[in-house]
Amino acid sequence: MTGKLISIEGIEGAGKSTVAGQLADRLREAGHSVLELREPGSTPVGESLRTLLKDGTIHLAPLTEAFLFEAARHELVVRRIRPALAEGQWVVVDRFYDSTTAYQGWGRGLDVEMLCRMHMDACGETTPDLTILLDIDPAVGLDRARSVTRGQGVTARDRFEEEGISFLKRIREGFLAIARAEPNRIVVISVTGDADEVVQCCLRVVEEKLGRID
Amino acid sequence: MTGKLISIEGIEGAGKSTVAGQLADRLREAGHSVLELREPGSTPVGESLRTLLKDGTIHLAPLTEAFLFEAARHELVVRRIRPALAEGQWVVVDRFYDSTTAYQGWGRGLDVEMLCRMHMDACGETTPDLTILLDIDPAVGLDRARSVTRGQGVTARDRFEEEGISFLKRIREGFLAIARAEPNRIVVISVTGDADEVVQCCLRVVEEKLGRID
Repeated sequence: MTGKLISIEGIEGAGKSTVAGQLADRLREAGHSVLELREPGSTPVGESLRTLLKDGTIHLAPLTEAFLFEAARHELVVRRIRPALAEGQWVVVDRFYDSTTAYQGWGRGLDVEMLCRMHMDACGETTPDLTILLDIDPAVGLDRARSVTRGQGVTARDRFEEEGISFLKRIREGFLAIARAEPNRIVVISVTGDADEVVQCCLRVVEEKLGRID
Repeated sequence: MTGKLISIEGIEGAGKSTVAGQLADRLREAGHSVLELREPGSTPVGESLRTLLKDGTIHLAPLTEAFLFEAARHELVVRRIRPALAEGQWVVVDRFYDSTTAYQGWGRGLDVEMLCRMHMDACGETTPDLTILLDIDPAVGLDRARSVTRGQGVTARDRFEEEGISFLKRIREGFLAIARAEPNRIVVISVTGDADEVVQCCLRVVEEKLGRID
């Protein structure tokens, strides 16, 4: 018995963590054991690196960022994802390697082929059974992300949000290009309605791609 | 005018940092501007990663370690080494990419070809003009490293020193294999006498390989 790995991707404000959490809840209601993870994070070193990567006061070279994301990713794969899949758990991860391709490749201009090699080194055969790309207009996404940040009383926006709209536009374009290149793995869902509609849509996609969930 | 990059390599207790410091002093006395660096370290993120990598309480997968070393290395190359070389400075670095090949490849069993690709990604054309490998018997090196640690009042040995002699033997073998494969770049110096003799020997090697220093 092997579980399924689902990654949720998209730019800031697309609603990834909300959708990931609600999707995990629905899968649990259908009787599955579900592990929710976020990347970078969900391991001791991953959370340390998350803090480092989100610290707006430290300016990192793009390839330094990429190596740090791959470090966090490899640790997540070997310590959390593979053991969970081997036990038959479903794993829902908020961001995975497509984010590095989109942000460091399309956003910051690193060579995409090099990044794909790095993903293969970091993940081996552990690739998502399904990736849901939550697609949103960058201006709308950034507004949503900022209102959430304000709601949490956080004043310092993270480094990616500081980059502005043109950076996010390149990243969105990157995500859509990645989705076109791998239509069997990646399904694009437009974020227009409320979160419930998006989650319903995700559940239909999961059942179409991975079979009935109950 | 372009400076020269010299890396000092070897296992624990070989005397790398002492030799690097004294070599830098002699080069300065000969009229050069010299930048001393250590790896991982010598940048804000590099020093954070050094602390993480040396924390004996966190067990990291070997490839996670390798990605973290490459992150620290890339940052060091772009922020410190390249600007210094461009200004004509000599750069002496205590460890560089051969350490990752020896420790994570020979020591922990990662694929050496994959690691070499990662070094090329991290460093590009910035490779050492000369690498001095300080070769020492692992048992002697470990004793020396432990006495230094005790002298500093540090009780917790770092993660690499905890691994013991057989691990260091594989790493020494790795360093010597790397040196055999790149005889034009790497010179092996046996650490048997005192530090002054080793430094004298290093200076002769530097002059043979890179030309008279004064």
